[in-house]
Amino acid sequence: MSPVWFPVPPAGYGGIEWIVALLADGLVDAGHDVTLFASGDSHTKARLDAVYPVAPSERIGHTYWELRHAINCLGRAGDFDVISDHTGMLGLTLGSMGPTPLAHTVHGPLSGEPGVMYRQIVAMLPHAALIAVSDDQREPQPDLPWVATCRNALDLSVYPFRPERGDYLLFLGRMTADKGAHRAIAVAIECGLPLKLAGKCREPLEQQYFDDLVRPHLSDRIEYVGEVTHGEKVELLQHARATLFPIEWDEPFGLVMIESMACGAPVIATRFGAVPEVIEDGVTGVIVDRWQEMGAALEQADAIDPQVQRRAVEERFSPQRMVADYLAAYEATIERWA
Amino acid sequence: MSPVWFPVPPAGYGGIEWIVALLADGLVDAGHDVTLFASGDSHTKARLDAVYPVAPSERIGHTYWELRHAINCLGRAGDFDVISDHTGMLGLTLGSMGPTPLAHTVHGPLSGEPGVMYRQIVAMLPHAALIAVSDDQREPQPDLPWVATCRNALDLSVYPFRPERGDYLLFLGRMTADKGAHRAIAVAIECGLPLKLAGKCREPLEQQYFDDLVRPHLSDRIEYVGEVTHGEKVELLQHARATLFPIEWDEPFGLVMIESMACGAPVIATRFGAVPEVIEDGVTGVIVDRWQEMGAALEQADAIDPQVQRRAVEERFSPQRMVADYLAAYEATIERWA
Repeated sequence: MSPVWFPVPPAGYGGIEWIVALLADGLVDAGHDVTLFASGDSHTKARLDAVYPVAPSERIGHTYWELRHAINCLGRAGDFDVISDHTGMLGLTLGSMGPTPLAHTVHGPLSGEPGVMYRQIVAMLPHAALIAVSDDQREPQPDLPWVATCRNALDLSVYPFRPERGDYLLFLGRMTADKGAHRAIAVAIECGLPLKLAGKCREPLEQQYFDDLVRPHLSDRIEYVGEVTHGEKVELLQHARATLFPIEWDEPFGLVMIESMACGAPVIATRFGAVPEVIEDGVTGVIVDRWQEMGAALEQADAIDPQVQRRAVEERFSPQRMVADYLAAYEATIERWA
Repeated sequence: MSPVWFPVPPAGYGGIEWIVALLADGLVDAGHDVTLFASGDSHTKARLDAVYPVAPSERIGHTYWELRHAINCLGRAGDFDVISDHTGMLGLTLGSMGPTPLAHTVHGPLSGEPGVMYRQIVAMLPHAALIAVSDDQREPQPDLPWVATCRNALDLSVYPFRPERGDYLLFLGRMTADKGAHRAIAVAIECGLPLKLAGKCREPLEQQYFDDLVRPHLSDRIEYVGEVTHGEKVELLQHARATLFPIEWDEPFGLVMIESMACGAPVIATRFGAVPEVIEDGVTGVIVDRWQEMGAALEQADAIDPQVQRRAVEERFSPQRMVADYLAAYEATIERWA
């Protein structure tokens, strides 16, 4: 069960939908019988069951729309051995009422209010089974009913490697303070290097952030290229000197790091969230304590061997590894239900 | 458990919140121990338990916000003998998982997709107990697990009666095609009478409707007075010649009809939804088959005795009657759960 707001895989923004696409296809490749509940404009090797012909992106977050989608799946729960739920708390809550073991992947952070809500929800659900996308993600709520950590993965066939690097810094991410486009700008200005920024800027809060903290700095050298397609993203990654990941919050995973490593651009990231689980500092990327140190870390990033970082993604973040992790998590979930 | 989008009672728009306010106070007056789950800016004789200090109106319909509110109540479900749920399908679904009998009042229509969703939801819930606000509301889905019809009510102390009538027609309702402000305008123009329109016009679809079908007709005589306070509404009702209720859909109840009857203005309504359950045609108001007949029905409306229509509201739509109906529904719900 995918979130229903974007097609699987998504045309632009949609990290969760990319993981769902890869997981559904990977499970089919591994010989399993899989039904994907997602919007009708999705493409998958699994059987597709859709209540909406087109993803209702403009309704994102609205109860009625996700409830219809969830009920379409959960009404058929008896048809399945296990439900792999990637929706929000609604899917977890409703799905854990049914007869079928359900493993809910937490894709968001658990600090603050969401963590408290998860705790309150699972207190009502005797069988709840949660999957984390990193060990760090569990840290604010270690006592939730975790069954596994299943780190995200990449379809490496669509992230072609290019060992040569370009001359600009790159920032990929939604236009929100969390992701830190404004910090990437400060680093680029300090280093006197060109910067390309790409990412979603649609919702009112994103537009506000962009107008306040990004737009005033745009120039010939600091360029916002908009929300990019997959192909454009790869192109940007293949020609960057380094990708900046200047977060100041505990991001649960950070797909852009492995995307960058796969294509050849070294990542310079701040030590928050899952960063140390994804990057081996000095070997497959560079980790700094504060974003203000990013400029000084650039030479160290230049020295990262692109072959080494590519190989790390192939070994640690392949779909096969993720599929195997999920299958083990499903077994654990079925046991908990029994 | 109230919807959380507006305070209880609401300052402006909020029909459900008015009913919840009246019911909670009425249950306390009848000697019951009541906790109201609503936003912190609510006012009630019950104990108030609020997860949000101020109603998050600008988040209306968003899962995360209503889920937090619902979980705040349902986490305490064991403290109560029965939960009277006035939220949407989320409250019904989550609440029916808990240990405490829950009676869910359906405030919206059941034609089309919502009716199908209710059917799918209750199929997952062995104990589900639904309350209708009119018999007509049940008509598209007669086989849902209905325990009672509890028609809405008015706090007559805040709807003072005025037997003399004024010279203008009145339309009260949200600016949507369903409610029919544009049909009221056509009637007023045909009759050559002034018309006052009042009602909520905040959301994009309401503004679009208003710009397309209402604004072009505004003049000295066709006047939109905005979203009104309770006092302004009473003032409008006390001085109207008649209130037009030109719906063309099966509205589940139609509070504005009893508000108008209480204050003295006769209602001319189209025969849809619960209209015949609320108005006794020719005695407490006038019912026409098509809105195009409203102009011709005006003399008949002038002849409706204001004392008779006031008394009908006092007898059939008093809070005491509604509270008694709800208490019987709670008993039936507790029996179903046992």
